[in-house]
Amino acid sequence: MRLSELGEDFFLKELARRFPTAGEHVVLGIGDDAAILDPPSGERVLLTTDSLVEDVHFSRKWMPPRFLGRKAVAVNVSDIAAMGGEPLGALLSLTVSPESEVEALWQLVEGVDERARELGMSLVGGNLASSPGGMVVDVTVAGATVRKRALMRSGAKPGDGLYLSGKIGASATGLKLLEQGAALAPGGGFLVPEGLREGPIPLAEACIRAHLDPEPRISLGRALNGKRIATACIDVSDGLALDLHRLCRASGVGARIEEASLPLSPGLLAWERAWKRDPVLAAVSGGEDYELLFASRSEDKVERLRGRLDLPITRIGEMTEEEGVALVGRDGQVRPLSPLGWNHFGKQAV
Amino acid sequence: MRLSELGEDFFLKELARRFPTAGEHVVLGIGDDAAILDPPSGERVLLTTDSLVEDVHFSRKWMPPRFLGRKAVAVNVSDIAAMGGEPLGALLSLTVSPESEVEALWQLVEGVDERARELGMSLVGGNLASSPGGMVVDVTVAGATVRKRALMRSGAKPGDGLYLSGKIGASATGLKLLEQGAALAPGGGFLVPEGLREGPIPLAEACIRAHLDPEPRISLGRALNGKRIATACIDVSDGLALDLHRLCRASGVGARIEEASLPLSPGLLAWERAWKRDPVLAAVSGGEDYELLFASRSEDKVERLRGRLDLPITRIGEMTEEEGVALVGRDGQVRPLSPLGWNHFGKQAV
Repeated sequence: MRLSELGEDFFLKELARRFPTAGEHVVLGIGDDAAILDPPSGERVLLTTDSLVEDVHFSRKWMPPRFLGRKAVAVNVSDIAAMGGEPLGALLSLTVSPESEVEALWQLVEGVDERARELGMSLVGGNLASSPGGMVVDVTVAGATVRKRALMRSGAKPGDGLYLSGKIGASATGLKLLEQGAALAPGGGFLVPEGLREGPIPLAEACIRAHLDPEPRISLGRALNGKRIATACIDVSDGLALDLHRLCRASGVGARIEEASLPLSPGLLAWERAWKRDPVLAAVSGGEDYELLFASRSEDKVERLRGRLDLPITRIGEMTEEEGVALVGRDGQVRPLSPLGWNHFGKQAV
Repeated sequence: MRLSELGEDFFLKELARRFPTAGEHVVLGIGDDAAILDPPSGERVLLTTDSLVEDVHFSRKWMPPRFLGRKAVAVNVSDIAAMGGEPLGALLSLTVSPESEVEALWQLVEGVDERARELGMSLVGGNLASSPGGMVVDVTVAGATVRKRALMRSGAKPGDGLYLSGKIGASATGLKLLEQGAALAPGGGFLVPEGLREGPIPLAEACIRAHLDPEPRISLGRALNGKRIATACIDVSDGLALDLHRLCRASGVGARIEEASLPLSPGLLAWERAWKRDPVLAAVSGGEDYELLFASRSEDKVERLRGRLDLPITRIGEMTEEEGVALVGRDGQVRPLSPLGWNHFGKQAV
C-alpha cells in the first residue's frame, strides 16, 4: 500500500499505537503538539539535529529502510556522545513521496524506535510531510549533560595528547563496496557482485555494517566528560582530517599526528590495498566513523579508561602551538594535512 | 554566489559569526556538536519539530526567504504554545540545492534568527545538507513547561465550553491570493495582478501577511496552562475541522459548534464572497491559522483572560458525549462536520 492510499493521520495514529511512549525521562511521547521530557534533576539539555538525504547520504539501492532509521538515530546520538551527554529522546521528521510504500516506512520507523531503545531513550515525536523530491530523514535528539558539564570542541591546549577511539576507515570502505553492488541479504549475510569476488571478502561485511549501522560512543563520552579526562572532543563524522581541523580551529591550536599510529580498520587496509590505493589517505579523508577524537592532558587517566571500556583508544599525536594539522609520515617526513574530509558543497574550509 | 562556490564549512563558520549565542536559557549555541540549554529550574522540556517543504508548503514564487525562515520558527513555537510552554531554543535543519543563492540563504537564516528573538529565544544550532530535490526547512523547538504542567489534547470532558482565539481563515485566503499572483513587494506594500483588481483589495494584504508570517499564541497558551483554565488544547494548523477532530479523538469526546459563532476573518469573508464561495467551508477546511482551540470548564476564567489579553477569544460551541463533530447551521440544522482540513497524503482519518 502507498502512503497516499493510507493517509497521513492513519499513519500517525497507527504510529502512536505501535510505538508507545517509553523511557525513564519521557513524560509524553508521540501524539500531541509536542513531546514532554523530564531531564535528570539539575542537568542541562543538549540538542542536536542531523539529516540523511536520499541520493546524497544513502541510496535506496543499498540502504534497507530499517538501517536507515537506525543510522539516523545513531549519527545524532554520536553528537550527544561527543558532548559527553546521555540521550533522552528523539524526534523523527520524515519528508517522503506520497507514493512511498507504507511497509518500507514502517520498517524505517521500527529502525528508529529499536535503535533509540538500544541507546537508552525512545522515539517521542516528529512530523510527516510529503515531497515531490527524494526522501529526507531528519532526526533531532535531546540529551542531558553529566554533572552539568559538557565536552566542547574548544579547550584543547598545546601539549595535550590527541586520542581516537576505535578504528577508522571501515565505513568509507563499506560505502565503496555498497556503491559497487555489495548488499546485505534480507535473510542475513551479504551479497557480493562478480566484480568484487577477487577481493578480501571476509572483511567486507564488517565494513558494510560499519557504514550502515554505526555505533555512537556514549560510554566513552560520558567518562571523558564526567571524569574530566578530555579537554576537547568531537565525533569523527566527516573524516578525521576535516574534524581534526574543526577541533583545532575551535580550540585555537594546531595538531601533529603520526601516520604510523593511526588505528586503521583491517577491512579498510585489505580493500584499499586490493584496489591499489593508499589506505591512510582513504582513512583520513573518509567519513562516518563516528569515533570520538579528543584531547587530554593526562595519559594516566586515558590509560585507566582503556582498562574499563572494551574499546581501543589510540594516542595518534598531540596538540601544537602552530596552527594547522601536520602528518608525520612513516618515513619521518612532516607534511601539512589539509581538511580533506567529506564536504557537501564542494569547497573545503576550516 | 552559489552555495557550492562558498562551501559548507565557510557557510557554517560565517553563520556562527553572524548569529552569536543569545538568550537567557542558552549555555552554548551554534558551532559545536550539540547546543546546550538550561531550562528554568525544575521545569520539564517540550520538544517539537515541523518542516516546510518547497512546492508543498510554499512556492519560491511567492515566499520571500526571510518570511520562510520566520514562518518555520513560528509554526513550531505554535506547538509549544499549544502545550502551554515557553520556547527556549531552535534548531534549523536545512536541506538545499548546492546551486542555492547564498544571499537567499542568509535572508532565510536571518528570518529564523529574528523570529526566534522576537519570540523570546534564539537559534542554537542545526544542520546543512545538500539535496538534488527541492528545499526542506526543518525547524525543531525546545521549550519549557510552566509550573511543570502542560496542556494536552486529551482532557476535555462533555459539557466543557469550546473556545477559539483570534479569527480564522485569513491564512487560507492569503494562500489563494498568493497562488493567483499576489505578492509582497520587496520595498513594502504588495503587488496585485490584473485578475484580482476587482476584489476587496484593502483586505488582501492582511490575509497574505497572515499566511506568510503567522503569530503563535504564547501568552494565551501560558495563561491557559498556568492558571488551569483549559482542559485540553491544540493549535489550529491543519484547519479547524481536522484539528477539532484530533482534540475530540484524544479526549474521547465529541463536539458541537455553532456556525453563527465562528470568528471568521474579514478578509476571508470579503474574498470568499467575491469568489462566490462559502466562507464557512473555506474557514473550517482551510489551515495554518495557528490560533489555539481549547476546552474549558469555566466561562468566568475565560472571561477574565479576555480582559487581560489583547486577543479575541470566542466560545464556538461545547464538548459533547456523542463522538464526532456536529455543526449547527444558521438555519438551526445540525450537520456532521467531517475532518476536511488539509492532509498531506490524500485520505482523511481521525
